[in-house]
Amino acid sequence: MKIVYIDHASATPVRPEVKEAMFPYFDKYFANPSTVYDIGTRIKKEVDAQREKVADLIGAKGGEIIFTSSGAEANNQALKGVALGYQKKGGHIIVSGIEHHSVLNSARFLERLDFEVTYLPVDGYGLVDPERLRKSIRPETTLVSIMHGNNEIGTIEPIAELSSVCKEKGILFHTDAVGTVGNIPVDVNDLGVDLLSLSAVSMCGPKGIGALYVREKTRVMPLIHGGIQERGRRAGTENVPGIMGLGKAAELAKGEVRGKMTQLQDLRDALRSGISKHISRVHFTGHTDQRLPGHLSMCFEAIEGEALTFILSQQGIYINTGSACASKALKTSPVLVAISVKPEVAQGSAVFTIGSANTHEDITYVINRLPRMVERLRSYSPLWQNGNAR
Amino acid sequence: MKIVYIDHASATPVRPEVKEAMFPYFDKYFANPSTVYDIGTRIKKEVDAQREKVADLIGAKGGEIIFTSSGAEANNQALKGVALGYQKKGGHIIVSGIEHHSVLNSARFLERLDFEVTYLPVDGYGLVDPERLRKSIRPETTLVSIMHGNNEIGTIEPIAELSSVCKEKGILFHTDAVGTVGNIPVDVNDLGVDLLSLSAVSMCGPKGIGALYVREKTRVMPLIHGGIQERGRRAGTENVPGIMGLGKAAELAKGEVRGKMTQLQDLRDALRSGISKHISRVHFTGHTDQRLPGHLSMCFEAIEGEALTFILSQQGIYINTGSACASKALKTSPVLVAISVKPEVAQGSAVFTIGSANTHEDITYVINRLPRMVERLRSYSPLWQNGNAR
Repeated sequence: MKIVYIDHASATPVRPEVKEAMFPYFDKYFANPSTVYDIGTRIKKEVDAQREKVADLIGAKGGEIIFTSSGAEANNQALKGVALGYQKKGGHIIVSGIEHHSVLNSARFLERLDFEVTYLPVDGYGLVDPERLRKSIRPETTLVSIMHGNNEIGTIEPIAELSSVCKEKGILFHTDAVGTVGNIPVDVNDLGVDLLSLSAVSMCGPKGIGALYVREKTRVMPLIHGGIQERGRRAGTENVPGIMGLGKAAELAKGEVRGKMTQLQDLRDALRSGISKHISRVHFTGHTDQRLPGHLSMCFEAIEGEALTFILSQQGIYINTGSACASKALKTSPVLVAISVKPEVAQGSAVFTIGSANTHEDITYVINRLPRMVERLRSYSPLWQNGNAR
Repeated sequence: MKIVYIDHASATPVRPEVKEAMFPYFDKYFANPSTVYDIGTRIKKEVDAQREKVADLIGAKGGEIIFTSSGAEANNQALKGVALGYQKKGGHIIVSGIEHHSVLNSARFLERLDFEVTYLPVDGYGLVDPERLRKSIRPETTLVSIMHGNNEIGTIEPIAELSSVCKEKGILFHTDAVGTVGNIPVDVNDLGVDLLSLSAVSMCGPKGIGALYVREKTRVMPLIHGGIQERGRRAGTENVPGIMGLGKAAELAKGEVRGKMTQLQDLRDALRSGISKHISRVHFTGHTDQRLPGHLSMCFEAIEGEALTFILSQQGIYINTGSACASKALKTSPVLVAISVKPEVAQGSAVFTIGSANTHEDITYVINRLPRMVERLRSYSPLWQNGNAR
């Protein structure tokens, strides 16, 4: 059976060049980079060379990159590390209501430690309004965290505009760019951000490795305390093979990202028009243009997203519903609630995230099968009768 | 040139069986284990099968294992996760003064959050006295953390005795067993511990993966907040290849640990007697018998440990000085200070950690070269004259 995997926001296969870059570091070059002898210092140099490659992809300097075990860890360190590092300045932070769970739950943890958190609402496209952000800033605000590209509805936030509101007031700005780095060009100076989270997975790098960009002179407390790895900002022996993989993936992404963007947009548009043409009562979610290139999200009326995901997988088509890494956590997606999708419509959420390996043939394969699947599920639904939602 | 690597506490080469277990999970089986479709749920099952293997190695249940990115992360979660999880019960914790940096610096972080910490002194062997522990317990004590095997001086603490003091009083007990799991038999019930940290590196597994054992019904707050991975106790997409590697390493360790222990002790004893015979003015540190099997540590008078490490590496001999993952952090080792080694003697610290790949030939190679190296360094030292320390 043909396999069409369109769930690249959840996971990606590691590309061959990346695997090749990693593999010697499991056993041939295995020494601890913190040791003082040659076989260790040589690895330390390699680790720092990868730091430069990651920095280079986002217009940063090597010393501004902290390697973490995931985008989620990077988000946790950004929120907690800045809130605690600047606690004497103030105890208020601002996040958008549609952030990834790792940002939202870090914010909730900070509330437990008596920080105050403002959860900014978004409009129907999922966009945060810079004026609204400006009004929510207080004298004691130390950090604003707004994600770059939303994993569930694909919307890309106007980060440069939002960060400039903060810069005026001397407030630090973090963006969760796990969905964007590797998928669109990202430059920390163009965006005007002080901290940025990224993950290798978005670049067909390995699981278990991510990074946090921290602008020079920005104080960030460690999340993992201990030794002086990562200049004292993240303890624990470096995941050397993972770092080699992330570095290689970043180097490749730098050269390919513009071409990839065009390719994915093209496939995405074909998928969107096929779905529009063949399926009724579908609500595309997120912004039409300001969105991740390979990302298409929608709600089908009168079906259950999880059921659709399941029956499509039986046809070899792999997609997602709701938020990628916590799909089992919640019945109604809080992101869809935030953009005012009615709960009964939100149930029918489907998220397609296209990767470079996908082809027009894949899209045609999906368009040839998806309408029948949706129809079949609707035929079981009490909400659906005679081809119309009740 | 012959290479004799005797720094297995710092890093280990990943063994072939472990690499083989990991590699298909980079690209062939790459789906996200949290997804609802077959290619994801199949991986979730594999992840849980590795959880069972890790549990099995230490006499625990699968559901009691949380995968982390390192031993350091496991230690951070144990300390912070329990202190914060039981904050309503009390705000006092106890650690020994010779813990790994990841425990000590987590404790210092908790002091910043207004917790009180008692740092227990140790005797000349590095041992914590159960009676002293008993006396330091207060009504508001919630957690005691004492490491199993010390990475710098090799001493194995009497964990069962120490934990029984805590059990009497209903206080949770954590042990950092990064140095012991894989090197000696470890059973959480024999030890009577509620939490235990381990790392794949001690078992010739990959870097970037560790685990925290948390006894059923023990509350531990996440260190990395976000999605519901690891039953809501550690967010972030699972490092599937790393988990597969740790599982395989644990499975192999289970069958091999007793044989390995005998082998390493034998090599260690040969190294110790060779050094005793050929080098004067050497102070072996840590306990003679209650110690990690492959671990030999000492201070040579009138030399600098870092210089010795360096010139030995030029002969292809790789050893360590001071604490493994933070050797550059400090000039005088706080562990050696804690066991009352004079600072001028502590400077000459050398740590040999033998692995299964080492042979008697390796030991002979070291014994044939080490005395000359020590002698050469001493000849440069103002503290040394005419073959005697001043």
